[in-house]
Amino acid sequence: MFYTDYKLQYPVRVETPDPVFARALQQAIGGIEGEIRVAMQYMFQAWGMRGPSKYRDMLLNTAAEELGHIEMLATAVALNLDGAPLELQEAGAQDAAVGSIMGGRNFRQFLSAGLAALPVDSDGVPFDMSHVYASGNIAGDMYANITAEGTGRTLATRLYHMTQDPGMRDMLAYLIARDTMHQNQWKAVIEELEDERPQMPVPNSFPQEQENQDFNYVYLGFTADGAEPPRGRWSDGPSVDGQGATFSIRPMEPLGEVPDLGPARPGTYPQVAQLPEAEEAQ
Amino acid sequence: MFYTDYKLQYPVRVETPDPVFARALQQAIGGIEGEIRVAMQYMFQAWGMRGPSKYRDMLLNTAAEELGHIEMLATAVALNLDGAPLELQEAGAQDAAVGSIMGGRNFRQFLSAGLAALPVDSDGVPFDMSHVYASGNIAGDMYANITAEGTGRTLATRLYHMTQDPGMRDMLAYLIARDTMHQNQWKAVIEELEDERPQMPVPNSFPQEQENQDFNYVYLGFTADGAEPPRGRWSDGPSVDGQGATFSIRPMEPLGEVPDLGPARPGTYPQVAQLPEAEEAQ
Amino acid sequence: MFYTDYKLQYPVRVETPDPVFARALQQAIGGIEGEIRVAMQYMFQAWGMRGPSKYRDMLLNTAAEELGHIEMLATAVALNLDGAPLELQEAGAQDAAVGSIMGGRNFRQFLSAGLAALPVDSDGVPFDMSHVYASGNIAGDMYANITAEGTGRTLATRLYHMTQDPGMRDMLAYLIARDTMHQNQWKAVIEELEDERPQMPVPNSFPQEQENQDFNYVYLGFTADGAEPPRGRWSDGPSVDGQGATFSIRPMEPLGEVPDLGPARPGTYPQVAQLPEAEEAQ
Amino acid sequence: MFYTDYKLQYPVRVETPDPVFARALQQAIGGIEGEIRVAMQYMFQAWGMRGPSKYRDMLLNTAAEELGHIEMLATAVALNLDGAPLELQEAGAQDAAVGSIMGGRNFRQFLSAGLAALPVDSDGVPFDMSHVYASGNIAGDMYANITAEGTGRTLATRLYHMTQDPGMRDMLAYLIARDTMHQNQWKAVIEELEDERPQMPVPNSFPQEQENQDFNYVYLGFTADGAEPPRGRWSDGPSVDGQGATFSIRPMEPLGEVPDLGPARPGTYPQVAQLPEAEEAQ
Amino acid sequence: MFYTDYKLQYPVRVETPDPVFARALQQAIGGIEGEIRVAMQYMFQAWGMRGPSKYRDMLLNTAAEELGHIEMLATAVALNLDGAPLELQEAGAQDAAVGSIMGGRNFRQFLSAGLAALPVDSDGVPFDMSHVYASGNIAGDMYANITAEGTGRTLATRLYHMTQDPGMRDMLAYLIARDTMHQNQWKAVIEELEDERPQMPVPNSFPQEQENQDFNYVYLGFTADGAEPPRGRWSDGPSVDGQGATFSIRPMEPLGEVPDLGPARPGTYPQVAQLPEAEEAQ
Amino acid sequence: MFYTDYKLQYPVRVETPDPVFARALQQAIGGIEGEIRVAMQYMFQAWGMRGPSKYRDMLLNTAAEELGHIEMLATAVALNLDGAPLELQEAGAQDAAVGSIMGGRNFRQFLSAGLAALPVDSDGVPFDMSHVYASGNIAGDMYANITAEGTGRTLATRLYHMTQDPGMRDMLAYLIARDTMHQNQWKAVIEELEDERPQMPVPNSFPQEQENQDFNYVYLGFTADGAEPPRGRWSDGPSVDGQGATFSIRPMEPLGEVPDLGPARPGTYPQVAQLPEAEEAQ
Repeated sequence: MFYTDYKLQYPVRVETPDPVFARALQQAIGGIEGEIRVAMQYMFQAWGMRGPSKYRDMLLNTAAEELGHIEMLATAVALNLDGAPLELQEAGAQDAAVGSIMGGRNFRQFLSAGLAALPVDSDGVPFDMSHVYASGNIAGDMYANITAEGTGRTLATRLYHMTQDPGMRDMLAYLIARDTMHQNQWKAVIEELEDERPQMPVPNSFPQEQENQDFNYVYLGFTADGAEPPRGRWSDGPSVDGQGATFSIRPMEPLGEVPDLGPARPGTYPQVAQLPEAEEAQ
Repeated sequence: MFYTDYKLQYPVRVETPDPVFARALQQAIGGIEGEIRVAMQYMFQAWGMRGPSKYRDMLLNTAAEELGHIEMLATAVALNLDGAPLELQEAGAQDAAVGSIMGGRNFRQFLSAGLAALPVDSDGVPFDMSHVYASGNIAGDMYANITAEGTGRTLATRLYHMTQDPGMRDMLAYLIARDTMHQNQWKAVIEELEDERPQMPVPNSFPQEQENQDFNYVYLGFTADGAEPPRGRWSDGPSVDGQGATFSIRPMEPLGEVPDLGPARPGTYPQVAQLPEAEEAQ
Repeated sequence: MFYTDYKLQYPVRVETPDPVFARALQQAIGGIEGEIRVAMQYMFQAWGMRGPSKYRDMLLNTAAEELGHIEMLATAVALNLDGAPLELQEAGAQDAAVGSIMGGRNFRQFLSAGLAALPVDSDGVPFDMSHVYASGNIAGDMYANITAEGTGRTLATRLYHMTQDPGMRDMLAYLIARDTMHQNQWKAVIEELEDERPQMPVPNSFPQEQENQDFNYVYLGFTADGAEPPRGRWSDGPSVDGQGATFSIRPMEPLGEVPDLGPARPGTYPQVAQLPEAEEAQ
Repeated sequence: MFYTDYKLQYPVRVETPDPVFARALQQAIGGIEGEIRVAMQYMFQAWGMRGPSKYRDMLLNTAAEELGHIEMLATAVALNLDGAPLELQEAGAQDAAVGSIMGGRNFRQFLSAGLAALPVDSDGVPFDMSHVYASGNIAGDMYANITAEGTGRTLATRLYHMTQDPGMRDMLAYLIARDTMHQNQWKAVIEELEDERPQMPVPNSFPQEQENQDFNYVYLGFTADGAEPPRGRWSDGPSVDGQGATFSIRPMEPLGEVPDLGPARPGTYPQVAQLPEAEEAQ
Repeated sequence: MFYTDYKLQYPVRVETPDPVFARALQQAIGGIEGEIRVAMQYMFQAWGMRGPSKYRDMLLNTAAEELGHIEMLATAVALNLDGAPLELQEAGAQDAAVGSIMGGRNFRQFLSAGLAALPVDSDGVPFDMSHVYASGNIAGDMYANITAEGTGRTLATRLYHMTQDPGMRDMLAYLIARDTMHQNQWKAVIEELEDERPQMPVPNSFPQEQENQDFNYVYLGFTADGAEPPRGRWSDGPSVDGQGATFSIRPMEPLGEVPDLGPARPGTYPQVAQLPEAEEAQ
Repeated sequence: MFYTDYKLQYPVRVETPDPVFARALQQAIGGIEGEIRVAMQYMFQAWGMRGPSKYRDMLLNTAAEELGHIEMLATAVALNLDGAPLELQEAGAQDAAVGSIMGGRNFRQFLSAGLAALPVDSDGVPFDMSHVYASGNIAGDMYANITAEGTGRTLATRLYHMTQDPGMRDMLAYLIARDTMHQNQWKAVIEELEDERPQMPVPNSFPQEQENQDFNYVYLGFTADGAEPPRGRWSDGPSVDGQGATFSIRPMEPLGEVPDLGPARPGTYPQVAQLPEAEEAQ
C-alpha cells in the first residue's frame, strides 16, 4: 500500500526554461533507462518475490523512492516549458532561432499535454512495460537492476552535460547520486547472497551437470576464415563465476546438418511447387 | 560482413512433436530473454564501440554465434509443428485432448507462417528492438549482457523442465551451456577492466565529486510510518563499488515543496477555471 | 513523494488456485482498463495540473490508492499460480483436463516471471503508456477518468462473473466498489466546476464564435441513399452542453472537390508516369 | 457497407505551405486524439452493439463522417509539404532558417511517403488499435467517445492557435465545430438513456448490493501523515450517480497483511536461496 | 468522403458458433494480413497519390470495399461468440472439453468487448498502422498491395480449412474470390504502366547510371567457404526487369576495412578505458 | 550457422559529418523499408521453407549480405555524429544554425547510445518484428521481398538526394545497386516457378472452384451515386494471373442485411437498456 504527501523529494528549480531540454528530459521519464521503468520494475520484482521476504520490502521501499523521481522530472519538464513559443514561424521565418527552438521540441508536450510531461522518451515513443524485468530469480533481477541503474546514471550524466542551468544541474546531481547508491544496493544483494555460495551462472539452482559439459566454458570462434577470435580474460584462466571451471578457446564448426523440413502440407496452402509430388501432380 | 554455410550449429531433433511446446519455444526466439535480442544487441554494441577495438571483434564473433541459435530454435519450432491438427473441433468436441492442443497453440504459426516459427514471444507479441541495449559505455553494456544471458538461461532451464523430449532436452542443454559461458564472458570483460580501476558506478568517467555527496551512499527509507527499512549488506559497511565509500541508512523526508505550476496559459486551451483570474473574467 | 508500508490495502485470498484465471486477471493489471493505467494517468494529470491546486492533491491521493490495487492484483495472480502444472502433456495427452489448463494459461507467467504477475494484459500484450491521458484540460481529463473507471468496473464485474472463488469475489467486490466511488469522484469534479459555468464543449476556453457556426449543432447524415439517419435526443431539442444551442439534422453533401495534388516532384523518386510531362519526356 | 464519391467533405486550402505544421497536423491523423481513432472506434462499437439497434446505425453514420475527416487532414498534410526543401544543409549551414525547417520536420513524410501524410502522430509514432474502446457497454462507450471528442477538440484548438494560415484555420474551425456536435451527440445518448434510469455507475446492470458497501461512496485518504485529503463535491453530500447514496471521507489503513508467497518451487529455477530449506540443502 | 447503408456487403451466417474460431478470425481483422490493413493502406495511397488521378479514385473505391470486409468479419466474430461459456471450470475440471474451449479463446473478446470483435490479431496483438505502406511511388505501392492480398488470401484459405461451418465457408469463399480479383487488380496497374516503359527496378525514375554498375545485376555469394551459392533464374541470363542487363554470379569479399571509430568523447561518459589516453590519465 | 570477419562489405566514408543526416539514415536501419527487416525476413523465410530446398540456401545467402548492410549503415551513422554538438543553446540562442542542428537531431543517438546508431527509424520508433513476412508460401514471400526491396530502393534514392557528401553518395550508390539486383532476384524466382504453372492468385494450391465464381474477376464499384469507377487494365480483357479468366466491372449492392446481434447477455454486464426485456424488468 502506498501513500503520498504531495511534496517533492528534492527541490526542482529551472532558471532559464528551455523547451528543447524539456524534450531531452523525457528520456529520463519514459525512456528505457528512465524512472517509470525502475519504479515499476522494483514493484513487480517485489510482488513476485518468493523466498527471503526482506528483499520484498527492500524493493518496495526503493520503488517508492523512484516514483518520486518521476515526479521531480515531470515537474522539471513543465517548468522548462514555461513561456515556450506556441506559434509556428511563417515560411521564410525571419527569426531562425525561434524556428529552431520550435522545430527541436516535442510537439505533443503542447498538443497532447498542454505544456507538460508525457510518459514517453525523448523521441516521443511511449514507454511500454515489456521493459519491466522481474524473472522470479533474485540474482537475475539484481543484474537487471544494476543494468537499469547503470544506463540510468549514464543518461543522467549526459543530460547534465547537455545543460548549463544551475537548477537542472542541481537536480541531476541528486539523481546521479541516487543512481550511484542504487547500483551499489543491487550489487550488495548479490554479495550478500554470495556469502553462501556462488550466484553465477544464473540460475544457480539448475544442476550444472545437466548442461552440455563440452560447451559451458569455451569461447567459440565464428570467424569466416577460422582465425582465432580475440583472447582476453574470457578465454584463459579460471572461470569468473566461482564454479572452479577453466576457460578455453576454439573455432566452432557446424555440428548439425542442413535441416530439411520436407514438402509442405496441403492444408497450409503453399504454392504447388512446395507440395509433395503426389499432391503436385493433381 | 557475415557469411553462412546453411548448416545448424548443433543438432536439432524432435522425437515427439508437440505444437504447444512450439508455442513455448517462441519465448526463446522473440521474447525479451530470447536469441534475436542478444544477436542484435551484441551487433549494435560492436558497431558503436569506441575505445579498445578488440571488444568490437569479440562482440561480433559472439553475435554470429547467436544468429545460429535463432536458427536452431526456429528449426525446433517447425519440427514440433509436424503433424499438428489444423481443423477446429466441432462444438461439444468429442475429443477434448485434441481440443486442448488446438486451443493451447499459437494460431499464427499456422495462419501467418504455415507451420513455422515467428519472431514473436510465447504470447505472440512481436519482438521490438527497443530491447537492444547499446549505450556506448562498455561496462553498462556488459551488465546488460549479463542480464540478457541470465534471464536467457533461466528461460532455457524452464523450457527444459517443461519438456521430456530427449531431442529438445539435448538442444536446450547446449543452449544452457552457452548461456553459462556467455555470462562468464561478459563478467570477464568487467574483471579485465577492473585490473586498471573500479568499473562502478557506471559510468566511471563522470567525476564523482559532481554528484550530490549527501545522497550517493545512503540507503533511504520511504516507509509511511518512518520505520527503518530492511538492513543488509547495502546499509552498512564499505560500498561495494570499490570507491572506498561507506554505506549508511536513514529515513527520507521531502526536501522540496508542493510544486505550483501556476495558472494555465490561454493558448493551451484549458478549462476557464484553470486560467489566470484576469483571463477567466473575460 | 511516495511512501509504502508493505501491506495490502485489502485482503487477497484464493481458496482454489486457478492458473487460467491468473491469465484473465492480467487484464486488470496491464490491460487498457487496468490499474497501472489509472495509477499513472492520475499521476501525470497531477504533475501537469495548472490552475486550482487542490485537484493536484486529490489526484495524487487517488493515484496512491491505485498503486495498491495493482499490488493486490499482482498478489492474486501469484496465489492463483500456486501448484500450477509446469510440464507439458505428452502428445495424445491422457489427461485432457490438465492439458486444457496448461494450454489456457499465459506461459510467460512461468517462463518469464517464475509464476508471478506481469505488466501485460490477458493476451500477454505489455501495457504501453500511450494510454495515459493527461491533456492539461481538467474537464477533458475528468471524462477520460470516468471512461477509465467505467471500463475498469465493467472489466471487474466480468471477472467476478468468471470465477466462483470466494476470496477472489471478495477482492473484486472491493475493487468494484472503489470503481463506483471513483466514477462518482471524477463526475463530481465536473459538477463542482459547473457551478461556475458549463464545462462542455471541452475546452470551454476556446471562443465558440470561432468555430464554424453552420456545423456545431447539427447531426449530419452520411447515408448512401441520403436517407435520414436515426433521430434521437441528439437531433432535436436544446443542446446538452448548456450552451443554449438547438440541435438539428440534415444530410451531408461534399463541400469540397476531388483534390488534385498534381504531378510528383522528381526528388521524391516516384515512377516516371507520376512526373510532370517535361520530366517524363527526358 | 461503405461508399465514396472521392470528394472532400469540406474544402482544404493552404495559402502558405509549412512543412513543420505538416508534422504537427499528424497528431490529428494518427495521434490518440486523432481521426483514425474515432473512425475505427465508432465502427467497432457499432459492429459489437447488442441491444437497441438504432445506436448501431447512429454510430456507423458518424464513423463514415470521421473517415472523411482523416481524408481532409491527409490532404492538408500533402498541401503543406508543397515545395518543402529536400536537401540537408551543409555543416555550418549558412541558412539557419532553412535548417530549422528541415530539422523540425517529420523526415518520414519525405523518406517513407514521398511528401504525404502517414498514419502516425506528430512524433512519428504509428497509431495502434489498442486505443479503440468498444466495451459492449453503451454508457461506457459513450463516455469513451466524449473523451475522444474532448481531447480531439482540445487538440484542434491548439493546432488552430499554432497556425495563422487562413485556409488551415477555416478547415480547423469546421473540425472544431464537428467536435462540439459530437461531444453533444454522445452525451445526448446518455441523457436519453437516463430517461429510464441512472446510467452510472457503469455498468448499471451489476447488482450494487454485491459490491462492498463500506467502500463504494467514500473518498479515501492515502496521505503519509494521515492528513485529510482535499474536500470537495466528491467528499460531501449526495452521490452524483443518481443512486441516492451519500459521500463520506476517511483516511485509509491497510486491511491486509504483508503478503508472503513462501519459498519458490524448484521447477521455476530461482536462486538456491529462494528454495525451501530442504531443497536448498541439497 | 464516405457513406454507409448499415447493410452487410455479403451475408454472414454461422450455423454452429465456435468461440475458438472467433479467436482465429481475429487474424483476418487485425492481423498484418487483415482487412484493416488493406482498407487503411489503399486510403493512404490514394490520399498521397501524385500523378495520374484515376488511380486515386480506383484506390478509394476499393478501400470502401475493404471497410465492408472488416464489418463482415467483425459480425462473424460476434456470431461465433453466441452462447460462449463465461465461467471458468473449477480446478480439476470435470468437463475438459469446455475447459479446452475456454482456454483456447481470446479472453479480451469477453473481458474488454463483451463478446465482440477487437481490432487485434489472433494472438490479441493490436493492429498498428506502421503496416500501412504508401510510399508515394505507384509501382512500389502496387507490389505492396499484391503482397497484402497474397498473404490475405493465404490466410483466408487457411481459415477456410480450419472450419467446417457452411456459413463461415460461404463467407470465406467470397473473401477469397475478392482477394483473387484484388491481386489481379494491382498487377493490372503495373501491366498498364508497363505499356509505356519497364516499371522495375522501383523507382524507375532514378537514373540507373548513378547506381554502382559493378553490383546491380550480380548474385553475390556469402558462403563461409566461398562455395558458389545456388544458381537459378537469378544468376544467369537476361535480367527480369526489362532493362536489358545480364545476370552474373560471384563470391563476395569485403571491400571495406575493419572500421575504427576511435576513442570515445568525454562528454558521452563512456568508461575511462574508452577515453583517449590523455583523458584517461587524468 | 553464421560467421564474420569484422570487415565492412563496402567502404563507408563521410567527408563532412552531418548529425541531422545521421537521423535520416536511421530509416534505412530500423525503418520498415530498412535493412534489419530484410535480413530478418529472409532468415525466417529460409528457416520455415518447405519444398524445394535450394530456395532456403539462396535466402540465407542473401540474408547474410543484408546483415553487412546494417553494419555499413550503423557505421555511417556513427561517423556522421563525429564532432556533433552535445550542449544545448542558451535560451535566445545566439547561434541559430547550431540550434537547428541540435534540434533536428535524434537525441537518443547521444543520450541512449553515446553517439551511435540505434535500431530505430528516423522518427526514433524502434523496429518491431511484426514486419517480418514469412508466410510459408514461396510466391507470397517473393512478392513481400520485391515490396521490401522496392520501398528500400526508393528510400535509398531519397537519402541519396538528401545529401551531397561524396562518401555517403558512394555508399548509397552501392546499396541502390544491390536493391536493383534483389528486386530482380525475387522476381526471377517467380519467373522460374512460372515455367511450371501460373503463380497467381497466391496461393495457387487452393482449388479456385471453391472460391465464389461470381466475384473473383470483377472490379466492383462502391461509389455513392452508383457511378462507374475508373476503368483500366483491371476492368476489361483477360485476367493478368494467367488463369484465363476475363475481367468485368459492375456496381456493388449490399447482398446482406443489416445485422442484428440481439440483446446482450446479462453476464457481460452491459447497460440495462441492452438486456432482454425480461432481464431489464428485474
